[in-house]
Amino acid sequence: MHSEQHPHVVIVGGGFGGLWAARALARSPVRVTLIDRVNHHLFQPLLYQVATAGLSMPDIAAPLRHILRRQNNATVLLGEVTTIDRNSRRLHCTNGNELSYDYLIVASGARHAYFGHDDWAAHAPGLKTLDDALLIRRRVLTAFERAEAETDPERRAAWLNFAVIGAGPTGVELAGTLAEIARHTLRREFRRADPAAARVLLVEAGPRVLPALPESLSAKAAAQLQHLGVEVHTGRAVSAVDSSGITLGEEHIAARTVLWAAGVAASPLGRCLDVPLDKAGRVAVEDDLSVPGHPEIFVVGDLASRMQDGKPVPGVAPAAKQMGTHAAKVIRARLAGATTKPFRYVDVGSLATIGRMAAVADLGRVRLSGMIAWWFWLLIHILFLIGFRSRLIVLINWSWSYWTYQRHARIIVGTTRDDAEPAS
Amino acid sequence: MHSEQHPHVVIVGGGFGGLWAARALARSPVRVTLIDRVNHHLFQPLLYQVATAGLSMPDIAAPLRHILRRQNNATVLLGEVTTIDRNSRRLHCTNGNELSYDYLIVASGARHAYFGHDDWAAHAPGLKTLDDALLIRRRVLTAFERAEAETDPERRAAWLNFAVIGAGPTGVELAGTLAEIARHTLRREFRRADPAAARVLLVEAGPRVLPALPESLSAKAAAQLQHLGVEVHTGRAVSAVDSSGITLGEEHIAARTVLWAAGVAASPLGRCLDVPLDKAGRVAVEDDLSVPGHPEIFVVGDLASRMQDGKPVPGVAPAAKQMGTHAAKVIRARLAGATTKPFRYVDVGSLATIGRMAAVADLGRVRLSGMIAWWFWLLIHILFLIGFRSRLIVLINWSWSYWTYQRHARIIVGTTRDDAEPAS
Repeated sequence: MHSEQHPHVVIVGGGFGGLWAARALARSPVRVTLIDRVNHHLFQPLLYQVATAGLSMPDIAAPLRHILRRQNNATVLLGEVTTIDRNSRRLHCTNGNELSYDYLIVASGARHAYFGHDDWAAHAPGLKTLDDALLIRRRVLTAFERAEAETDPERRAAWLNFAVIGAGPTGVELAGTLAEIARHTLRREFRRADPAAARVLLVEAGPRVLPALPESLSAKAAAQLQHLGVEVHTGRAVSAVDSSGITLGEEHIAARTVLWAAGVAASPLGRCLDVPLDKAGRVAVEDDLSVPGHPEIFVVGDLASRMQDGKPVPGVAPAAKQMGTHAAKVIRARLAGATTKPFRYVDVGSLATIGRMAAVADLGRVRLSGMIAWWFWLLIHILFLIGFRSRLIVLINWSWSYWTYQRHARIIVGTTRDDAEPAS
Repeated sequence: MHSEQHPHVVIVGGGFGGLWAARALARSPVRVTLIDRVNHHLFQPLLYQVATAGLSMPDIAAPLRHILRRQNNATVLLGEVTTIDRNSRRLHCTNGNELSYDYLIVASGARHAYFGHDDWAAHAPGLKTLDDALLIRRRVLTAFERAEAETDPERRAAWLNFAVIGAGPTGVELAGTLAEIARHTLRREFRRADPAAARVLLVEAGPRVLPALPESLSAKAAAQLQHLGVEVHTGRAVSAVDSSGITLGEEHIAARTVLWAAGVAASPLGRCLDVPLDKAGRVAVEDDLSVPGHPEIFVVGDLASRMQDGKPVPGVAPAAKQMGTHAAKVIRARLAGATTKPFRYVDVGSLATIGRMAAVADLGRVRLSGMIAWWFWLLIHILFLIGFRSRLIVLINWSWSYWTYQRHARIIVGTTRDDAEPAS
């Protein structure tokens, strides 16, 4: 079944795109090698919950080799791909490994981007990996601790101001959850600082929050955010970020904690492919998701750029899964001498959670908001988590949080080696 | 109840000693300030489970200010004490805070020690904090990943050799669990390396494992370790540790993962007290646990050195709790103009777990080993965990691990900034 004679499919990246591609090749006459820089598949839609101390890391992440343990034709390797040689069909990894492929699926995703302001990164961490989430958790929880230890009222206020830049789904989730932490979770736990006096600012350069959703839902989301205590600033671009806070136009706002949710750029691996990239660094793929001129190389997920009916296919989990599955199908068809239909993204709707009992959902003809959208969001996210154990534990943690307003993962680690903690 | 007029009790350290002292002062006419370098109380007896990916961090740690939220006379501060001025009764913290005290309870515990070989620290991490546990987890899981990526058989074997130095309770727990991970948890997940070929060495300079227990139980523990697949080397001192492995006498053993469980030294805060210290850096305390010449300063827990009936009071959780409670009682008595009996440690017995269904227990007249000792250990450790939620989640995680042989927290984080990852 997985003899050395079978064609070798190398998949770079174990996110939704890469993992779904690997699984879709389980019964095919190929050898599959999945390479990732980390050892786990991450359920990214719930990453903000780890950053805000509602869930632990293993609740939303599982080792890739554990997920694929029964798929005998699949090998998982920990490593980072540095170069891709399209002519010899080989790739090189940081750990010294060299791999040759017959088919290559690149699914290395995206990172957050600072639009030319890389110096902002130290002051405004973004959220893409579990390491990012632990850093944000540490910054947020430490800010309240610093406020409690601070005796000067002005400096204390700066520790209690939180600015979230960017009002896409991640920014909205972070801002809504921060407001809940300040107003409910930490109530009665501080003796000098008053967490309820914290200000949470959500700053968006565009005209409305959740710009990917219909306008009516954006308005409902903004209202729910304000109800939770978030100050929503739309139509205002950030002109500076430093250790003291942010500048909006001419106005400087003191905020010792700034979180970045404003933009993503594709993985730098796109550049190794030596094909045209769009301005976000993504690879424009053919209608079978292969790279122009190289039918044996596929790009799926956030790294792929694809227009459909005049609109770009969005960088969301369902699109990455559909693309990964499609690339696998194309490979199977080619091996069987058959052809496939062009890739078509099936829009399953958009969901964004805002906070306790607050969410919006766009399901095509049906639009939901408030409590019913929140319950729908909860159900969907628990169903899509990988592994029975994770589902059960997350359900217990959420029920506990719901009734007690507590967040169980309020553990600060890594303080001894914080990278860019602003000096006080 | 907690007016500014009340005497100020400052407690340094939120481990078993410090937290139990704070709680015992809940109804006393004092103001309590608890300072710790980290924001959480850690249930240290289960720390090895976090290091070996069986439990997540929040399962065994809870924020100190959450634990003390209803104790209105207590303030919790995050900070590290740098100096103690006994004459002016003031202490200074790294965050710039200065505190004056009427009573001081120092409960800053111990760290692991390398007996003058501090250069071994980078190659052989010890286990005292959650950061230590995440580092060990990363080293152990990465070693199997490196073995899978390695093509040279000799180098692969070095990645599959694990050496644990020191056969006290922590060393025994780590070695037993590593053997279980290699033989059961990772089975069928690797395609090139065979985790079952891993060697786990437990090295002890003294004549037997678990030297604090009676000889008969040491022998039973050694037999159980060997049954689990651990190579037990007693009576052999380590003469060198580097990135390639360890040296026992003249013999070099290649092992890319070395864990240190061989010794502890008291917290450096003992030196700030300017009193005689024993050779492990501990403070010899009076029979009310105060410091000679300074009845207003108490030292409790692992930092205190106290002889009782010709034997030292051991550095274990029950002793720290009893000392913390006693120091609080002495303060209450002094405020009421009363006296207290000298401190007496009540030995509640010793328990050490070895692995699945393997443990030993010394309960005075009753000695247990094997399955019954393991069930007893499980029961005790779940009962003593703080918080209903933790107990429930740990019970679920353990039941799941027990039936599936899986360990759910197999998540590597922090790889991008590993401090001392030996180059390959």
